[in-house]
Amino acid sequence: MTAPSAGFVSLVGAGPGDPELITVRGMRRLEAADLVLYDALVHPDLLALAHKAHRFFVGKRAGRRAIRQETINRLLIRAARRGKHVVRLKCGDPFVLGRGGEEALALHEAGVAFEVVPGLSTALAAPALANIPVTHRGISSSVAVVSGHAREAWDGTLAALPPNVLTVVVLMGLRARQAIASHLLRHGWRPDTPAAVLWAAGTPAARTWAGSLTELAQLDDAADPEDAPGTLCIGDVVSVRHALERDDHGFATALAR
Amino acid sequence: MTAPSAGFVSLVGAGPGDPELITVRGMRRLEAADLVLYDALVHPDLLALAHKAHRFFVGKRAGRRAIRQETINRLLIRAARRGKHVVRLKCGDPFVLGRGGEEALALHEAGVAFEVVPGLSTALAAPALANIPVTHRGISSSVAVVSGHAREAWDGTLAALPPNVLTVVVLMGLRARQAIASHLLRHGWRPDTPAAVLWAAGTPAARTWAGSLTELAQLDDAADPEDAPGTLCIGDVVSVRHALERDDHGFATALAR
Repeated sequence: MTAPSAGFVSLVGAGPGDPELITVRGMRRLEAADLVLYDALVHPDLLALAHKAHRFFVGKRAGRRAIRQETINRLLIRAARRGKHVVRLKCGDPFVLGRGGEEALALHEAGVAFEVVPGLSTALAAPALANIPVTHRGISSSVAVVSGHAREAWDGTLAALPPNVLTVVVLMGLRARQAIASHLLRHGWRPDTPAAVLWAAGTPAARTWAGSLTELAQLDDAADPEDAPGTLCIGDVVSVRHALERDDHGFATALAR
Repeated sequence: MTAPSAGFVSLVGAGPGDPELITVRGMRRLEAADLVLYDALVHPDLLALAHKAHRFFVGKRAGRRAIRQETINRLLIRAARRGKHVVRLKCGDPFVLGRGGEEALALHEAGVAFEVVPGLSTALAAPALANIPVTHRGISSSVAVVSGHAREAWDGTLAALPPNVLTVVVLMGLRARQAIASHLLRHGWRPDTPAAVLWAAGTPAARTWAGSLTELAQLDDAADPEDAPGTLCIGDVVSVRHALERDDHGFATALAR
């Protein structure tokens, strides 16, 4: 699809962090953009693609208040009405815990044309980049993606999930990891269920911790790299990583890390 | 990361169908490949990127037996050992119901270096391309992705999910749609739960059906475009699509479709 010449907004997912993990369409929209509104954790190389655009940071920064969603919506609408091609660049995928639906509704209600350019959701890409397939034949054929941002978002959902059936991935759950692990244990999950914490997936600072659900319930934030976002992955599929990274051959499968 | 000169395998996700929805890294790996083993439904424009590669179809074709997984593994290993850069190009994401974990294990056991280049999973991209955010503030903050390929894969999982809490996406569930919808209704899901069938997402033949869970339980295969794959999406988030596509302004938000 060719981008039209009238003003419009592309809601673009930047993927998990690595600038090569944006889609080709996302790259092209950045190259053509007049204005880019971007979130925290977006890679500078992606912003550099938008060589002819004004670029504005609208994300949260440590210790500073985030720009309100309504303000972002108003900026998007105003620029599109002036005929600009606006890229709203969001981490991961706009429609997976990314508030993209709210922005899409605001644009639609304002009569502004828009499109969604999906990105790799960190929920699926962070495990993949750490050699964890969220589904694996004979282990799990389903995965639940849950928000760990606020207790009311995960408390009831995780309590109601059948123990040790679906792989569970928690986005924005780093701070709540101990509470989440304890909660699952109380609701019948096996204490030795493999679990992983994936920090800064898709960046050179990426780090992985793996252990049991019991150990996750005791993992305090001393282990956390500073300011790194983190994803939790819980389920027997985490054991595939151990099999893939066990060095039976005297060489490292470095590419896969 | 630069690709090394020794033989190795890139397990690449092609995304949901649209060739512009592969990642930039996936595109670069195709351009550099010596050999591409690809599945059904991979777009010809992606194969054309692999201009210097031998290209072999190893997917399932209607009425013909699929090549066995063991044979594919052997082809990957043999070519990598001969120093080739092999791309194993899979629809969607290799690690989301894509058997990528099995191929990774086979490569690792054979001592062949490999990497995973994630792709957009159809599970999240098909809804997004149909204007359905799988999570949406105030509606749902979690999503379950389930395989509809074999009844034993979805029967127990769907029965155990709390009704009307997580958005449910079923991959490879087109043929089982009536059984899956009836199963959810029997397990307490609201009869008026919004549901959608997303055929051929990310292709020019893309089509969407939307209705209630009760209607999905009655939707027979007369509605199916021939040979099109299909994704099911069930949950209140499907109603966001109605809001986004309701034409309050006398113009179509054509880009978003």
